[in-house]
Amino acid sequence: MTQPEPWAALRRHWQELADLGGIGALLGWDQSTYLPRAGAASRARQQALLSGIRHARATDAAYGRLLDGAQAQGDLTPVQTRTLAVARRNFDQATRLPAEFVQTFSQHAGETYSAWVQARPENDFARLVPLLDKTLDLSQQAAAYFPEFATPMDYFIDAADEGMTAEQVDRVFTALREALVPMVDQAAAAQVRTDFLSRHYPIPAQLALGEAIARDYGYDTGAGRQDLTAHPFMTRLGAHDVRITTRVREDDPTDALYSTLHEAGHAMYEQGVAEDLLDTPLGGGVSAGVHESQSRLWENLVGRSRAFWAGQFGRFRDAFPEQLADVTEDEMFRAVNVVRRSLIRTDADELTYNLHVITRYELERDLLNGRLAVRDLADAWHAAYDTNLGLRAPSDVDGVLQDVHWYGGRIGGAFQGYTIGNVLSAQFYAAAQAATPGLEGDLARGDFTRLHSWLREQVYAPGRLYTPGDLVERVTGQPMTVEPYLAYLRGKYEGLQG
Amino acid sequence: MTQPEPWAALRRHWQELADLGGIGALLGWDQSTYLPRAGAASRARQQALLSGIRHARATDAAYGRLLDGAQAQGDLTPVQTRTLAVARRNFDQATRLPAEFVQTFSQHAGETYSAWVQARPENDFARLVPLLDKTLDLSQQAAAYFPEFATPMDYFIDAADEGMTAEQVDRVFTALREALVPMVDQAAAAQVRTDFLSRHYPIPAQLALGEAIARDYGYDTGAGRQDLTAHPFMTRLGAHDVRITTRVREDDPTDALYSTLHEAGHAMYEQGVAEDLLDTPLGGGVSAGVHESQSRLWENLVGRSRAFWAGQFGRFRDAFPEQLADVTEDEMFRAVNVVRRSLIRTDADELTYNLHVITRYELERDLLNGRLAVRDLADAWHAAYDTNLGLRAPSDVDGVLQDVHWYGGRIGGAFQGYTIGNVLSAQFYAAAQAATPGLEGDLARGDFTRLHSWLREQVYAPGRLYTPGDLVERVTGQPMTVEPYLAYLRGKYEGLQG
Repeated sequence: MTQPEPWAALRRHWQELADLGGIGALLGWDQSTYLPRAGAASRARQQALLSGIRHARATDAAYGRLLDGAQAQGDLTPVQTRTLAVARRNFDQATRLPAEFVQTFSQHAGETYSAWVQARPENDFARLVPLLDKTLDLSQQAAAYFPEFATPMDYFIDAADEGMTAEQVDRVFTALREALVPMVDQAAAAQVRTDFLSRHYPIPAQLALGEAIARDYGYDTGAGRQDLTAHPFMTRLGAHDVRITTRVREDDPTDALYSTLHEAGHAMYEQGVAEDLLDTPLGGGVSAGVHESQSRLWENLVGRSRAFWAGQFGRFRDAFPEQLADVTEDEMFRAVNVVRRSLIRTDADELTYNLHVITRYELERDLLNGRLAVRDLADAWHAAYDTNLGLRAPSDVDGVLQDVHWYGGRIGGAFQGYTIGNVLSAQFYAAAQAATPGLEGDLARGDFTRLHSWLREQVYAPGRLYTPGDLVERVTGQPMTVEPYLAYLRGKYEGLQG
Repeated sequence: MTQPEPWAALRRHWQELADLGGIGALLGWDQSTYLPRAGAASRARQQALLSGIRHARATDAAYGRLLDGAQAQGDLTPVQTRTLAVARRNFDQATRLPAEFVQTFSQHAGETYSAWVQARPENDFARLVPLLDKTLDLSQQAAAYFPEFATPMDYFIDAADEGMTAEQVDRVFTALREALVPMVDQAAAAQVRTDFLSRHYPIPAQLALGEAIARDYGYDTGAGRQDLTAHPFMTRLGAHDVRITTRVREDDPTDALYSTLHEAGHAMYEQGVAEDLLDTPLGGGVSAGVHESQSRLWENLVGRSRAFWAGQFGRFRDAFPEQLADVTEDEMFRAVNVVRRSLIRTDADELTYNLHVITRYELERDLLNGRLAVRDLADAWHAAYDTNLGLRAPSDVDGVLQDVHWYGGRIGGAFQGYTIGNVLSAQFYAAAQAATPGLEGDLARGDFTRLHSWLREQVYAPGRLYTPGDLVERVTGQPMTVEPYLAYLRGKYEGLQG
């Protein structure tokens, strides 16, 4: 088979994969926003059908030969070299697991999820042990199809953050926990006024305000939009169609606000990828950790800063004059940064959130490495919460049965990205601050232009052009390191106690 | 190739075609409701890609062999016989036109549409003549692939309404025009108060009221929903996901109301198809004309009746107390039935609307039969409007350039369905009245249950189980006839003048 123009054919193939991906994203977006109750069964079948079509194209042997042909042709630009590397990585990830294995795994995941939905309200972890034993076994088998990784956890981490190792994550998480535990002790003891956040905030005004700030951040609503959902997410439906969703509570305006700012961070990353990379293997965010760093940067490092509230509090008081009549800017700033120990990850504040994540990461790692048995997982959970947060859940419902992740998929790689995102968010933000003198002044004036431009140029535009590790080093001058994040947290929480 | 179980394989194939159709419907629905401006290019590609995939499955030779196999197996139930007949008809329609011809036609349609978008504001029909000449030629070529039809118009009419002929349509339309022209003369002379319809009606209240009435009609919003769009439509996204869209004007509450009731009529038809026919070739409305009859029945025969307003006017006054403070139920009934000659089809009232349609139908027919040349079309338009409506457009903008239909597709079969729908709506409604003594009393109490149940059982549940002609005859006791429609119009407009 001759390949006179492998690149033109590859470009068409990538375009088609991107279009099929966009169709799949629309099916999922609609399912989470507007799908009528009775439409669920057809939608599930449509999604399975489209996944099958997309998988067939992504693993097509002719496509593999095109990749070989382009590689063999040689004389590659750096962009072409990296494009082929990412395409090959995706191709391998899609082809190495035998179809039958994927089928078994996916069916088991479905059964386990159903069992969890029933067992959770009954606090019946014991019933799930045999199912989770099989999940663990299948997870280890999946990793074994990639023998180039030292441990199963290395495989799962690399799948989410190319090139990152378990050793690297362990090191960062260990340093982070050591620093966090005493910080939480101190911050959780502070008296903070939060009563005004549970007043009545009408929904349309909340949504309008959140969207206005997201637009000020730089989210382009001409190439995206926000809708309501139960579990907020960002999704790319096309080259210039990147949507976000939020949820909104009448008795807590911070819920919708920070959800919107978080998802807008993800969306600005996707919207900022350079035009000529779109609809190619390089046309998207580079890794789970770097993606999360951008959502966290806009949500927390910007959105929970004193400068942000200096710029935005007036707007909030205009939108909610009665609710905030007796509230100062400083009280608002403190309220959105309150630290309280809790049992539930998704309710956690910026500081304790990482301890929830590290706990889960370490349990996953120990399960995969055979140091912990599934039957001991519930007790290990309680022990770890005692150590890391000084709390003990009254039952497994708020313990090991809390999160869906292990029960609806694999064990491995599900959690670490959240905290890697936090760590990287501060590292990128420190670089942005160094490159942008007077940045705090911008934020205090409600002007996010320079920050957004810098991030777009440095982080967003390259898409997947560099490995995540290379990108971090290019932009920040060093590999992933926990120091900027610790410095940020110390600065903020010492300031709050001052 | 042995076919031990052609029916099981066919069932799976039909399921897949239905699921691909549902995905395509979602792409179109989103395009018309929520798609961000910048997302248009990706969406167009996604639609083309999915159409290609669906076309390939719909015309798969293996599928053709399954149809042959099931036919050859014999021993068919009546449902199986009709299912195979409809499947074969769809298969033939999809396979007889060569792919290259379809490609040429579709590309030409796209170019013509773009030219129309530019030429229309410039009132430049001359520029479109060569393009329309080619459209006419291609339309005639398309019809020629189906030599079993006597004329091109017969082919296009049959494609929309299986089994209906141009002769049949001509006969009905001629009788209709003869009766309508003097009726319009009389009705358009009446003095009717309509001032209150251009007051300010807030949009959320309009939408809530329209949806409430649609639900009372029988539209199941647990298996559907209503959203906003520029050009309202109904679409099936899945077996139990049938959505409608509407548009809304603050200065005319009848626009959204009747759009909603019209689309709800289409949607109730689709929602009422029997469960065991869904996701098979019989699982949907049987023809364009019968579909339109159901939307018109609920929009006009019910929604513009005196009994409807007896039941609903109080609700309107509760929703819009200030706007309707000086308005009586009788004035409302008269206002929504006002007859005024106009140049624009989409603004026309119930009575004159048919004259707009008949005009277009006759011009199409004469073009296809070679009795009219494209270069004479603009003048023929003016002459026909003079004859049928006693009006002459000041320019082609409100004349031959008015509707997109001929410029975005083929010439043939685009218009007659609207008026066939009106004719059939009255024929079905007369049968419903005969079978449901006291129906007007129901409507006047706002109770639509018996009417909806009767229609569901008689018209909706069978789906495509009978040909359109057989269905009309089974339900109404006679073939399509214009008499019930004329009787309905006479009764209404004589009553209004009394």
